[in-house]
Amino acid sequence: MTRDALIPALRALVGDANVLTDGDLGAYTRDWRKRWTGVPLAVVRPGSTAEVAAVVKAAAAAGVSLVPQGGHTGLVGGGTPDASGTQLVLNLGRMNRVRGIDPANLTMTVDAGCILQAVQAAAADAGLLFPLSLAAEGSCTIGGNLATNAGGTQVLRYGNARELCLGLEVVTAAGEVWDGLSGLRKDNTGYDLRDLFIGSEGTLGVITGATLKLYPQPVARMTALAACASIDDTVRLLQAAQARCGATLTGFEVMGDFALSLVRKHFPQLPQPLPPSPWTVLLELSDAESEAHGRAQFEALLEQALEDGLIADAAVAESVAQSKAMWHLRESIPLAQSEEGLNIKHDIALPVSAIPDFVAHTDAALQAAFPGVRLVNFGHLGDGNLHYNVQCPEGGAAAAFLREHEDAVNALVYDAVCARGGSISAEHGIGELKREELAARKSPVALGLMRAIKAALDPQGRMNPGRVVAAG
Amino acid sequence: MTRDALIPALRALVGDANVLTDGDLGAYTRDWRKRWTGVPLAVVRPGSTAEVAAVVKAAAAAGVSLVPQGGHTGLVGGGTPDASGTQLVLNLGRMNRVRGIDPANLTMTVDAGCILQAVQAAAADAGLLFPLSLAAEGSCTIGGNLATNAGGTQVLRYGNARELCLGLEVVTAAGEVWDGLSGLRKDNTGYDLRDLFIGSEGTLGVITGATLKLYPQPVARMTALAACASIDDTVRLLQAAQARCGATLTGFEVMGDFALSLVRKHFPQLPQPLPPSPWTVLLELSDAESEAHGRAQFEALLEQALEDGLIADAAVAESVAQSKAMWHLRESIPLAQSEEGLNIKHDIALPVSAIPDFVAHTDAALQAAFPGVRLVNFGHLGDGNLHYNVQCPEGGAAAAFLREHEDAVNALVYDAVCARGGSISAEHGIGELKREELAARKSPVALGLMRAIKAALDPQGRMNPGRVVAAG
Repeated sequence: MTRDALIPALRALVGDANVLTDGDLGAYTRDWRKRWTGVPLAVVRPGSTAEVAAVVKAAAAAGVSLVPQGGHTGLVGGGTPDASGTQLVLNLGRMNRVRGIDPANLTMTVDAGCILQAVQAAAADAGLLFPLSLAAEGSCTIGGNLATNAGGTQVLRYGNARELCLGLEVVTAAGEVWDGLSGLRKDNTGYDLRDLFIGSEGTLGVITGATLKLYPQPVARMTALAACASIDDTVRLLQAAQARCGATLTGFEVMGDFALSLVRKHFPQLPQPLPPSPWTVLLELSDAESEAHGRAQFEALLEQALEDGLIADAAVAESVAQSKAMWHLRESIPLAQSEEGLNIKHDIALPVSAIPDFVAHTDAALQAAFPGVRLVNFGHLGDGNLHYNVQCPEGGAAAAFLREHEDAVNALVYDAVCARGGSISAEHGIGELKREELAARKSPVALGLMRAIKAALDPQGRMNPGRVVAAG
Repeated sequence: MTRDALIPALRALVGDANVLTDGDLGAYTRDWRKRWTGVPLAVVRPGSTAEVAAVVKAAAAAGVSLVPQGGHTGLVGGGTPDASGTQLVLNLGRMNRVRGIDPANLTMTVDAGCILQAVQAAAADAGLLFPLSLAAEGSCTIGGNLATNAGGTQVLRYGNARELCLGLEVVTAAGEVWDGLSGLRKDNTGYDLRDLFIGSEGTLGVITGATLKLYPQPVARMTALAACASIDDTVRLLQAAQARCGATLTGFEVMGDFALSLVRKHFPQLPQPLPPSPWTVLLELSDAESEAHGRAQFEALLEQALEDGLIADAAVAESVAQSKAMWHLRESIPLAQSEEGLNIKHDIALPVSAIPDFVAHTDAALQAAFPGVRLVNFGHLGDGNLHYNVQCPEGGAAAAFLREHEDAVNALVYDAVCARGGSISAEHGIGELKREELAARKSPVALGLMRAIKAALDPQGRMNPGRVVAAG
């Protein structure tokens, strides 16, 4: 098929209304942080797995590349077409059906284009919990969550998107449908194809459906804030909370003082229950028994931590509204830092035990190299995942600082991360943004294995080309 | 290198004492159920990752295939050489060092040849829990557990071996070392190589080391037995226990009456606290708070279940000794059925919700096809995993029954499993035993993907050839 013949062929496959070539395609061609803008050959919106397969086959026959796309909320440019005008955006948004819920098996099967919040709501309607939770949940899709192995705020207890998925349906690069949907907790029949597609960012195939794990709804969810004098104390508090509360500890977020000061500055209407301290921890317990039991557990933990000197102060939310307000503080940090101006973001992970040394070393090294630099440090400490963001000195010009220093800042931070066995992408993925960094920092053996897999499953290199890794 | 030159080369690499060609090699060449016996070119016992890499390179240069081997306790013939006399057994048993424990990160890094029980003990010495637990734990190795994605009795709460591993060290088919050891809970830097090697049964590379997840030790572990009138009631009890106890429910095993009757017959000295009933459930709670709290939870659960008619009777262990005795009952079932004679074993998984229908249908179909046949049905119901074993009619000749009917029994059982979205290998793997069954029952698309991956990572087909899948 010639490239010219492809568009009419696609219209015949999915309907005229679902092949977009004109008008404002910004929602599909520009990421929401406006860092990448592309020009597609067309945006195709198939309505079923069979249509996805037919589109992939037609594109292959025409020698055209595909960029699979969910809610287009990614942070690394993995879902935006390039500028060549030759790539098809394959948007899964029309595939948004909950295919079924099996309460006795604690599973649900969904189309890839379901919005995460709709998945959570469908589980809640069945009296169950789908725990994946992250800032973009109102617009990201479960297919995108799986393609990028999304993390979020409940990973400490329930794991990443990977751990919440039992089975996948995938359209391969050859346009075949792999029906790997499965409600099984145990299945040792061959290679783990599921986990190979999860986190591959659309470079090996297109996720079209998934079977997800559900959990019983906890009877009570409770939140507290605690003030710590040092990052070392936050790690010790984490250990104490894990030992005492086991799996009822479902959230453990840290917020550095500068991060919370930006929230105070830009959102002064948000109450901050605790006075400023070097670190504030948000803890969440989810209790299967009763609210009274959860509260008693929480108070015992925090009293012991006060006695042991791990925390200086604490506040337990007395109502759902107070609990939401505490989470709202945490969730306002990214918005507050946007208000403050551009910064250099790092989505890093470290062994929890390495975090105090990393923070002490890197804070000091950045101050020495860029005097006055400000650190917006917050994140999912329970998972070893920090959003360690670097803002220009007070009163400085943010854009100029980034232009001049972004590469050097990244090198300093990533060197410190890698020296401590850490990751340069904890939960956001590689996409366009970190492809070169990955190629430079991943071991040659790992890169070789990845390239061999890419070449084996996408020999023509047409699935989201140039993202994550190039074929070997 | 010629094949003749290989043995002296291996002796130079790992030392004369670690290249075995003579004497009784039965431990390496005959599986413990004595279903497969092979003849190796040699048994090589490298002492380090570097030695493993050197052995793999030498074997590749000589065109010789390798059979990686851990504790050699597998049930599907995946670790036994073939009869050709041309394969090297690569036994990892000398690599048994705990490389390090990081309590603050809740991780430990070990050589692949560590015995599972030694891994558990090292974690316990650090005041922590490594939860993987299975019958062969005194002799299986963690490398074998990972290569086969072992399951066991704690999967309900902690997952399979896969879920307990954060990072791997692997020697590739090319003899390169991939250092993927990692203490990270989040790491989205490229394809999930770890999970590809886990469960690949040595056909893609040799696992030489692993970083494992640890958990805080629960304060109290408690066990109870409950009598159910039907398999339906066991499933309803599971749901009630999950809803009430959340993650403190760490074990949920079922035992059919015939299975327990074999224990009564062959091990009459073992106390059975409950009178015979169609199904007996073993429940385990692990409490982070206190024994009193766990006991109160347990009693409340069982009282409610009695009231709701889900169970007819229950017994809560009053001491660690009683708890162990209950587990001992469960663990004695495989031994009791061995005493009773050969049977046809099925390690199957189903969606939990499909189990009642599966059991009703398949019990009846087997009775219709093979009147008087006896079903030894037990397993990890919480994971949907049954060991659904078929024994010849009372007084019949077991060997003759197997000879005559094994294929037909397997076809009947596996048809019923597959019709309900189940797996023909829940936790034991494929190996030699189920390779043909897998080729016949796995979807052609999945098999095609598996073959492409095999060809990409082991292009010469020298890693445990013929197991799981042949190269495409």
